[in-house]
Amino acid sequence: MSAVPQETTTSAVRLSSNQYGKAENRVVRVYRDSARHELRDLNVTSQLHGDFDAAHTEGDNGHVVATDTQKNTIFAKAKEVGISSPEHFLLTLADHFTGEFDWVTGGRWAAEEYGWSRIEGHDHSFFRSAPEVRTAVLKRDGDRDHLLSGFYGLTVLKTTESGFVGYPKDRYTTLPETEDRILATDIATRWRYNTTVGVDFEATYAKVRSIILSTFTDHYSYALQHTLYQMGQKVITEVPEIDEIRFSCPNKHHFAYDLERFGLENPNEVFYAADRPYGLIEATIARDGVEDAPEAWADVAGYC
Amino acid sequence: MSAVPQETTTSAVRLSSNQYGKAENRVVRVYRDSARHELRDLNVTSQLHGDFDAAHTEGDNGHVVATDTQKNTIFAKAKEVGISSPEHFLLTLADHFTGEFDWVTGGRWAAEEYGWSRIEGHDHSFFRSAPEVRTAVLKRDGDRDHLLSGFYGLTVLKTTESGFVGYPKDRYTTLPETEDRILATDIATRWRYNTTVGVDFEATYAKVRSIILSTFTDHYSYALQHTLYQMGQKVITEVPEIDEIRFSCPNKHHFAYDLERFGLENPNEVFYAADRPYGLIEATIARDGVEDAPEAWADVAGYC
Amino acid sequence: MSAVPQETTTSAVRLSSNQYGKAENRVVRVYRDSARHELRDLNVTSQLHGDFDAAHTEGDNGHVVATDTQKNTIFAKAKEVGISSPEHFLLTLADHFTGEFDWVTGGRWAAEEYGWSRIEGHDHSFFRSAPEVRTAVLKRDGDRDHLLSGFYGLTVLKTTESGFVGYPKDRYTTLPETEDRILATDIATRWRYNTTVGVDFEATYAKVRSIILSTFTDHYSYALQHTLYQMGQKVITEVPEIDEIRFSCPNKHHFAYDLERFGLENPNEVFYAADRPYGLIEATIARDGVEDAPEAWADVAGYC
Amino acid sequence: MSAVPQETTTSAVRLSSNQYGKAENRVVRVYRDSARHELRDLNVTSQLHGDFDAAHTEGDNGHVVATDTQKNTIFAKAKEVGISSPEHFLLTLADHFTGEFDWVTGGRWAAEEYGWSRIEGHDHSFFRSAPEVRTAVLKRDGDRDHLLSGFYGLTVLKTTESGFVGYPKDRYTTLPETEDRILATDIATRWRYNTTVGVDFEATYAKVRSIILSTFTDHYSYALQHTLYQMGQKVITEVPEIDEIRFSCPNKHHFAYDLERFGLENPNEVFYAADRPYGLIEATIARDGVEDAPEAWADVAGYC
Repeated sequence: MSAVPQETTTSAVRLSSNQYGKAENRVVRVYRDSARHELRDLNVTSQLHGDFDAAHTEGDNGHVVATDTQKNTIFAKAKEVGISSPEHFLLTLADHFTGEFDWVTGGRWAAEEYGWSRIEGHDHSFFRSAPEVRTAVLKRDGDRDHLLSGFYGLTVLKTTESGFVGYPKDRYTTLPETEDRILATDIATRWRYNTTVGVDFEATYAKVRSIILSTFTDHYSYALQHTLYQMGQKVITEVPEIDEIRFSCPNKHHFAYDLERFGLENPNEVFYAADRPYGLIEATIARDGVEDAPEAWADVAGYC
Repeated sequence: MSAVPQETTTSAVRLSSNQYGKAENRVVRVYRDSARHELRDLNVTSQLHGDFDAAHTEGDNGHVVATDTQKNTIFAKAKEVGISSPEHFLLTLADHFTGEFDWVTGGRWAAEEYGWSRIEGHDHSFFRSAPEVRTAVLKRDGDRDHLLSGFYGLTVLKTTESGFVGYPKDRYTTLPETEDRILATDIATRWRYNTTVGVDFEATYAKVRSIILSTFTDHYSYALQHTLYQMGQKVITEVPEIDEIRFSCPNKHHFAYDLERFGLENPNEVFYAADRPYGLIEATIARDGVEDAPEAWADVAGYC
Repeated sequence: MSAVPQETTTSAVRLSSNQYGKAENRVVRVYRDSARHELRDLNVTSQLHGDFDAAHTEGDNGHVVATDTQKNTIFAKAKEVGISSPEHFLLTLADHFTGEFDWVTGGRWAAEEYGWSRIEGHDHSFFRSAPEVRTAVLKRDGDRDHLLSGFYGLTVLKTTESGFVGYPKDRYTTLPETEDRILATDIATRWRYNTTVGVDFEATYAKVRSIILSTFTDHYSYALQHTLYQMGQKVITEVPEIDEIRFSCPNKHHFAYDLERFGLENPNEVFYAADRPYGLIEATIARDGVEDAPEAWADVAGYC
Repeated sequence: MSAVPQETTTSAVRLSSNQYGKAENRVVRVYRDSARHELRDLNVTSQLHGDFDAAHTEGDNGHVVATDTQKNTIFAKAKEVGISSPEHFLLTLADHFTGEFDWVTGGRWAAEEYGWSRIEGHDHSFFRSAPEVRTAVLKRDGDRDHLLSGFYGLTVLKTTESGFVGYPKDRYTTLPETEDRILATDIATRWRYNTTVGVDFEATYAKVRSIILSTFTDHYSYALQHTLYQMGQKVITEVPEIDEIRFSCPNKHHFAYDLERFGLENPNEVFYAADRPYGLIEATIARDGVEDAPEAWADVAGYC
């Protein structure tokens, strides 16, 4: 940074990037073709990329597809095309906007999906059951697509088979080593598909979620890093359509409460669950030989 | 109010009510007696009632059981007595504090519980699965207890078998009648037990939750009021330990999106899920012949 | 409670209380009579009391003033009558609904107000500046009104002139006494007016807020209880229209960080601000000789 | 994407990126050198980059500086070095961690700061007054630093001097043009410094905030894009130390309520403030001739 002396800077400016659209369109699609209704419940954001310079620099909106129009389109497409998966719905929107307007060369479309279960024995009644929120982001730049899927909010905890030892100690280190602790985290993850064609997005989602849950618990964890890596390794190995997977996971500290002061033992039975600060462990596991795609990950909230 | 002319008021003041304690103690209790661990995850608040006047009026803390002491006690009791149910744990705390300190004549103890499920096939690993948060509040005043249990955050939706017609119309009325709409709400409920002795709090919780879910969908709903009443009626009828049940339920509007403007039909298939404003429907259903107990409900968040 | 044996209970039920309406109507009222615009920004809830039994028990909506109609009315009254204060606006709504519909005998109307400041030197541009949210609740039952005003979200902190000593010690007590600590809280308060006639609600709000802020800091605080009492005492003494004031205030713990372990002194300079648990101190200070009005406080969120 | 046939992928994996640390350390630093105390209130996150592969792939924590150690260090440095600005404090942390541990080659340090004002006339009492949260992020990679500063949560609104016309219409367009509307947004912005040396971070923050506020209102706005561009242009022109500024701003829709149905005019006086969906306008304005630095912006929450 010191190589760029501030005196030589010019005061001319440029619009170096921009995107705009309608965020958080809460669309619920009901399928009532038979007495047994079906339901998809999404929160959809549409943002366009393209030639919108004049709107910024001159106040000329001739290219600005109104965000209200983007909203109307989302709801219309939910009827015209339907929602078979968040991923497929985003591809539909991308095709529409880049096809309809010459100057729209790409964009960013994102969805969250909330999971519902049928109330037992009833055809048209549901309760919101999924602990996690499913996510999808499609980024299109000309003829290049990047598709990320994932979820957040899946909280997991193991009561044992986790420890933390062998770390370096300096003058600010006070943490005692332990070979038995609670390990808990809220899993936030996104994975990058290497294709958008021929993928069964519903089945793949279920498979990745299942791998992550079972891998969380199938080994002694030396650190959350160690566990995340194994989750990612297994996903990449077992799902050929995925080239890369990221995790952003808090280490939700559960401190064994000091009960000795009251004449009580506490063999890891009573814990105080702390809010802040928390460890924050983030990692990307990629298929060997596949190039990184940092542009796919720009604009996601934080690391993933 | 106009009957109390403000000129005659005195400027002498009194402390007319007070309570204090430690709120939101996040206590996790693990049972590891066998290889198959068990888990209770609570957020516990303790507040004491009694003779604390001098602390307010004179800065004399001689009676102020430190909130830090209350916290320590909660964690100690989680070990000494354990947590078999939120309700039982609150009773334990109440007995302790009113027994330990002469001037503590009662209090208010509250808990939230978060529900976990075992990761399939694993003995010590769990994911947070319950959509709703379970609640309990115990209010003790001398030898009189009031015990409320309940939950919030259970979101339900039916795609049909709901309408709203026959309401009065005035000059501000623009809502069209409908015989087919989505009905959706987040159920928040509390019920009042008529005894604390001999109740299986775990089984009763499961039973009430199950009645509420199935009653939500077993009839054509003329309004959310109509549905809440039936839920309450069934709970009171089937659970003799409960004398009163309250509901505070938003009518989460799902508006059929106007697609005619785009040449599309929308036979209740595509909805916009609105945030605010929302209907807010609140009702108490009580056992006939049983007196109200408004003091039991004071200090709950809103109507229930 | 044990005096009510559950065996003798009947299974007949009654609707013991109910209210309904439209919650969180976000109404912004602009006054543009001169080039210097004015702005009121409110979140208004309307709920009606009266004869709505048939809607619950029989699905007959003949008395159910649609919540959509209540919404329309709120926005219409913002134009017809305007918003000179949240309190006055709620009184307007109450008069309308109880006047318009025979079977509406009362209700509960509530508002939050968000405070804006003019951007310096500009007539029609504002930024949201108030740290606190102003509140008002009007409860009407026949010809009896209860009016509460207040605010929440005003965070205050003093770096010294606060301590906590002299409290009782039992086997669970580990807290050391201190004569110098940070005292910090988020002030939530509501006060009850003894009249709705002739009050300058704007001036009174400003006066109460100012008394609370200055009293927070004008004395050595022996405990948060001690400080709340003085705040309340001064408000009751100086504002004759107010008969009662409540506070619900977290003791937001700021723990001096243990730096001795690193060879550093920490004379109350570096603190860790904790989230949970927190102390929770609640008190009501009333004018002497004035009766309590618990019905005014039912349905507020928690203690106040 | 279709150019990468999934059959040819290998199942070998690599750790392609990672970072970890302690997030959201709530540190409050008091200066009590004179009777007139000063206060800084921060939320600090530290994450390290470097050689941590073995922790992931082998469960070997030999290089893992414990997140607890990072926490201790943050609090220790708040004493040893103090907090003169969030930016300077992050630089202090970066120097410490990269200097202390050979294998730590960089990292990501972030802070939020909450703004307090002195209670009028008092030396040691404060209330939290700033509507916005100030932010800073330092990213160090070897000897290259990227420093972003900014804020979020500053809500602004103009009641007139804003319109939206001239946009393209397709079959999904229903929005009517308007030359007078409310324009409101929550400003979230970050700017990138071209140096970390010799900058007065306090003065620059105040200057940028002031430019943004006054530019919001000094022109007729043809669209939020138009207004953001002018804000950015002025910042770049007037602050030579800043090479790039980003905005991510919701268009917070305020819809004039349709009162004609009730026989009332509404000349932009009564508005419904909507929650979702909202427009989302994002743009980067850069100094001409300066290269982009996408790596500086990776990991921020969303666009900025």
